[in-house]
Amino acid sequence: MPRAVSDGADNLDADMDNGAAQQQHDGYNVGAPPKKNLLAEFAGTVKETFFSDEPMRRYKGQPRSRKLWLALQHVFPVFEWGSQYTLAKFKGDLIAGLTLASLVIPQDIGYAKLANLPPEIGLHSSFVPPLIYALMGTSRELAMGPVAVISLLLGTLLQEEIDPKKNPLDYRRLAFTATFFAGVTQAALGFCRLGFIIAFLSHAAIIGFMAGAAITIALQQLKGFLGIANFTKKTDIISVMKSVWGNVHHGAMELADNIDRSIIFGIPPGCQGKKNKKLFWVPAIAPLISVIISTLFVYITRADKQGVAIVKNVKKGINPPSASLIFFTGPYLLKGFKIGVVAGMISLTEAIAVGRTFAGLNDYQIDGNKEMLALGTMNVVGSMTSCYIATGGFARSAVNCMAGGKTPMSNIVMSTVVLLALLWITPLFKYTPNATISSIIISAVLGLFDFESAYLIWKVDKLDFMACLGAFLGVIFSSVEYGLLIAVVISLIKVLLHVTRPRTALLGNLPRTIIYRNVEQYPEATKVPGMLIVRVDSAIYFTNSNYVKERMLRWLRDEEEHQKEQKLPKIEFLIVDLSPVNDIDTSGIHAFKELLRTLEKRQIQLIFANPGAAVIQKLRSAKFTELIGEDKICLTVGDAVKKFAPQLTENV
Amino acid sequence: MPRAVSDGADNLDADMDNGAAQQQHDGYNVGAPPKKNLLAEFAGTVKETFFSDEPMRRYKGQPRSRKLWLALQHVFPVFEWGSQYTLAKFKGDLIAGLTLASLVIPQDIGYAKLANLPPEIGLHSSFVPPLIYALMGTSRELAMGPVAVISLLLGTLLQEEIDPKKNPLDYRRLAFTATFFAGVTQAALGFCRLGFIIAFLSHAAIIGFMAGAAITIALQQLKGFLGIANFTKKTDIISVMKSVWGNVHHGAMELADNIDRSIIFGIPPGCQGKKNKKLFWVPAIAPLISVIISTLFVYITRADKQGVAIVKNVKKGINPPSASLIFFTGPYLLKGFKIGVVAGMISLTEAIAVGRTFAGLNDYQIDGNKEMLALGTMNVVGSMTSCYIATGGFARSAVNCMAGGKTPMSNIVMSTVVLLALLWITPLFKYTPNATISSIIISAVLGLFDFESAYLIWKVDKLDFMACLGAFLGVIFSSVEYGLLIAVVISLIKVLLHVTRPRTALLGNLPRTIIYRNVEQYPEATKVPGMLIVRVDSAIYFTNSNYVKERMLRWLRDEEEHQKEQKLPKIEFLIVDLSPVNDIDTSGIHAFKELLRTLEKRQIQLIFANPGAAVIQKLRSAKFTELIGEDKICLTVGDAVKKFAPQLTENV
Repeated sequence: MPRAVSDGADNLDADMDNGAAQQQHDGYNVGAPPKKNLLAEFAGTVKETFFSDEPMRRYKGQPRSRKLWLALQHVFPVFEWGSQYTLAKFKGDLIAGLTLASLVIPQDIGYAKLANLPPEIGLHSSFVPPLIYALMGTSRELAMGPVAVISLLLGTLLQEEIDPKKNPLDYRRLAFTATFFAGVTQAALGFCRLGFIIAFLSHAAIIGFMAGAAITIALQQLKGFLGIANFTKKTDIISVMKSVWGNVHHGAMELADNIDRSIIFGIPPGCQGKKNKKLFWVPAIAPLISVIISTLFVYITRADKQGVAIVKNVKKGINPPSASLIFFTGPYLLKGFKIGVVAGMISLTEAIAVGRTFAGLNDYQIDGNKEMLALGTMNVVGSMTSCYIATGGFARSAVNCMAGGKTPMSNIVMSTVVLLALLWITPLFKYTPNATISSIIISAVLGLFDFESAYLIWKVDKLDFMACLGAFLGVIFSSVEYGLLIAVVISLIKVLLHVTRPRTALLGNLPRTIIYRNVEQYPEATKVPGMLIVRVDSAIYFTNSNYVKERMLRWLRDEEEHQKEQKLPKIEFLIVDLSPVNDIDTSGIHAFKELLRTLEKRQIQLIFANPGAAVIQKLRSAKFTELIGEDKICLTVGDAVKKFAPQLTENV
Repeated sequence: MPRAVSDGADNLDADMDNGAAQQQHDGYNVGAPPKKNLLAEFAGTVKETFFSDEPMRRYKGQPRSRKLWLALQHVFPVFEWGSQYTLAKFKGDLIAGLTLASLVIPQDIGYAKLANLPPEIGLHSSFVPPLIYALMGTSRELAMGPVAVISLLLGTLLQEEIDPKKNPLDYRRLAFTATFFAGVTQAALGFCRLGFIIAFLSHAAIIGFMAGAAITIALQQLKGFLGIANFTKKTDIISVMKSVWGNVHHGAMELADNIDRSIIFGIPPGCQGKKNKKLFWVPAIAPLISVIISTLFVYITRADKQGVAIVKNVKKGINPPSASLIFFTGPYLLKGFKIGVVAGMISLTEAIAVGRTFAGLNDYQIDGNKEMLALGTMNVVGSMTSCYIATGGFARSAVNCMAGGKTPMSNIVMSTVVLLALLWITPLFKYTPNATISSIIISAVLGLFDFESAYLIWKVDKLDFMACLGAFLGVIFSSVEYGLLIAVVISLIKVLLHVTRPRTALLGNLPRTIIYRNVEQYPEATKVPGMLIVRVDSAIYFTNSNYVKERMLRWLRDEEEHQKEQKLPKIEFLIVDLSPVNDIDTSGIHAFKELLRTLEKRQIQLIFANPGAAVIQKLRSAKFTELIGEDKICLTVGDAVKKFAPQLTENV
């Protein structure tokens, strides 16, 4: 160690000698930006927080009529893409829309069952919402409709309040109420430009949550698949397994019969073939084909009379109005509101995440706040036209994208096909076996597993993986809400931990340069004798000011012990590299004052290197620069070392 | 502007030419620290989070008996300071203890009234808790006992559950229950080393909260001061003023009489004379003297028969046991628990903040976790010996410090004097006028206003000041709990905002150097033509990854527009200075991948400069370094510019 240190010192000296001519930093003082007044400062913060996308930019210097047209385009992007719409684009959208419809019709029936709602409500939700979204949305790939996770979440939350079997009407009313408030929540977040709130659900937590939800949904399908009548209402794996086992135990023969009868209809409709892009339509239309085949089979053989459970009634006709069914008074108002807020936030998170993924693939950006407004309006209108919460699902958006959907027009095509189905062919679904629907859902939710991302998270960040695992285990062993709560809490704790215990690093000189770097990262970096150079890697706030102060004293203590052992010169300067410190608050300045006082008693001088704009401004306002002395604030660590090395008493 | 730009380019070229010999950075690659295994990484995080003070350090390499002795000292620091105790120190402690006692005896009576408890419980709380603290505490100045804010908080929260006049016994039982759980909370936080949780209450929020509480407490004293019988239970300024006004309105004459009779006993016992350090004892003993004089006066003139409200009964004798009074079952258990947790956290925050302030003044460090354990044990024992929540108050600790208290022994002296008072002189307090006690409390809480700090906060950080003001207004216009909630929420929002919308800066070259700095902070810094150099000032996490990506694209768009206007060369390189980016997660890497894809389509190359240890490690794990190319990761911005400037097609 002493070798390296003296080595560093030599190089340093050399550096200082022949570098002096070239490194004329002395001409520069640490700059401070022009002082803004209170209003400007406040406006700046508000702008970056709420209007970081500069929505007013395009209106600048435009004539009035143009401004109006732009505003209309802003609220209804259909006017933007519609005016450049071509027949070639329509060809792609038509194929995508037709493929989508064949995928979503059977899925919707299954998802509605997952939410304990009648199958036609699932179909309704793939008719009105996509139309609204096509007018207001900015994503070219998002396909709207019910999705598995939200259906499961809604089903779980609603049945805690009302029993869907005993009181189906009130149950449905509460579902519309929740949908209404989900829409209001989404639109309000978009309108108030609070979209960044959903950023607090981390990617890792969502991956875990989705995988857990997929398992839960697949387990729920055991009911339809095995034809179990007394299935548990709980969704955790233990309850479900008990329920399955109990049924096996009590009526082994009967169940075996059921399985026999059902299983032939549970033909897996092909895996989500991601491998061959040209054959994308095989998994996409497989559900419809298996529905058609199995339905025909049951209709011909009348297997339903042999105990095969079927979908039974699916009401014909377009969406009836349901605005009057929403609870605007009474005890269910608050419950519907709560469920709606939770489900609205989650569906928002899913839609925006999916939308961003595809926008990234096709190199454009979606406007988060506009999307929220679109999703919100869609669900508010949906709640008044017998729909439940719709959002942009991953699987259907992927099909849309692969089938060549170029604009939201594919949503309109899909919606039209669903309308035709509602008008004419729904009665035909009567004989569709539940087992077929269940297997369609199982194969759909398999796409929610993202092992690749989970593995990447594991490799990159173990703490992130904990969040992922926590959400996953929470969903499968407890409930969807609990898993969600775990995901949010772990995500927040991670952020807060980061601001409570920021990293600090000891810096050393890279030989033959004036660069100072973390000695742990660059083993060749050598410490400067008589000086301790520490870098703080975070804003210094009340959450960490005390830790930062004590951590610096700990570095100092460790270093002094090391000195005694090695008989090195005493430390006379503590240089704090403030480059990564992008902000400081009064607690932080207070901590530095305490540090300064402690150091003065030990006859160690405190030097700051490279404070940023906000930091130097605040240090000056608090008059800390006067306390420490303006000359102690240097442009770089190199400058600081150069300036104060000659003052070392035990110079080497 | 073009002048400046070409100027910068010239300097840059000059730099590159004659700097080449000296700046041999090429020999260095961006380093990565040796890879730690999972366990080591996890242990490192746990250590910095929970054991950043290295509690086991002193046990290293010690013989067994020594280890035991050190462990005993660890739990009971009295063995540490007691073994070096001298008579000289005792002299200081004796004077400090006696001064303290004369201050706290009248204060305790008033604080107990504030908590709607009998006066003797206030005195009990200055007897047992200081003794326990003296054995376990690490602060030399903290003086233990009831404090104004906690008394007010406890009084408000408790009387929401039980009416102290109708059911005094249950009220007292609930108070002991809350005290018990406050102690358990504090000890548990200390034991689990979760002390950093209290760091989330920001300095600014506390200043505002304290000032608000001081006004509320002072307003509450109007009751005793004006002798109003039907005083409101609410603590907000509007209710109190209405109550006062109502009383004035209804019984103006009577009130005027009361005021006449009371006011003479409300002799202000001297302001908290901070100006003259030698006369510190004048305000410290003034309360006791005014109590003695006014009590004697009432006793002689029997003014109580003329309507002057007096303290009446103060029970004689030492603390009776109260463990059996604590609610360990029943509906009050949960309520007591909740109140205890809240009050325990606040009293912890106050004690640690005060303790740290004085430790900083006298240049030593208190051990936060040990303090919590001491405060917790103190309150648990207190709850079993008829005490309510005690903590280290600012005023009494200041008196202790100024009176020359050197060790926790001053607490023992104070406690002994309080014991003597309980045994013999409490009956004498019977005739003490309420108005005197009220004026003592008013003068005590005036010390809670910290205008100086509030002004500093305003100057340094407007957002911080909002937190301060929010807490202040919340307390005076609503209630203590609400003000507290506002303080916590604003504090958290500030932290979260910081991680959601991190600062970014455009860098330019400081002429004649290879240093690149924020062009806003250093107006002399010039941009490099054909290159856009951006610095991100925060860890890139899921909370901000999307914002960071879009902000960079916005910088690029702004710069490209600027180019077109000025006919400058097209931007071909985006250099991202990662120096301040101390961490990145999977969302952040994902955002960079999307950025890279977008840039590739625009034929702009992405270059990273100076990634830190954690960042380079994670970029490598995620194979992002392979995607971007190892050669695109440079040691400094200067190196990056030097390396890629020759590749510019429109070189100037």
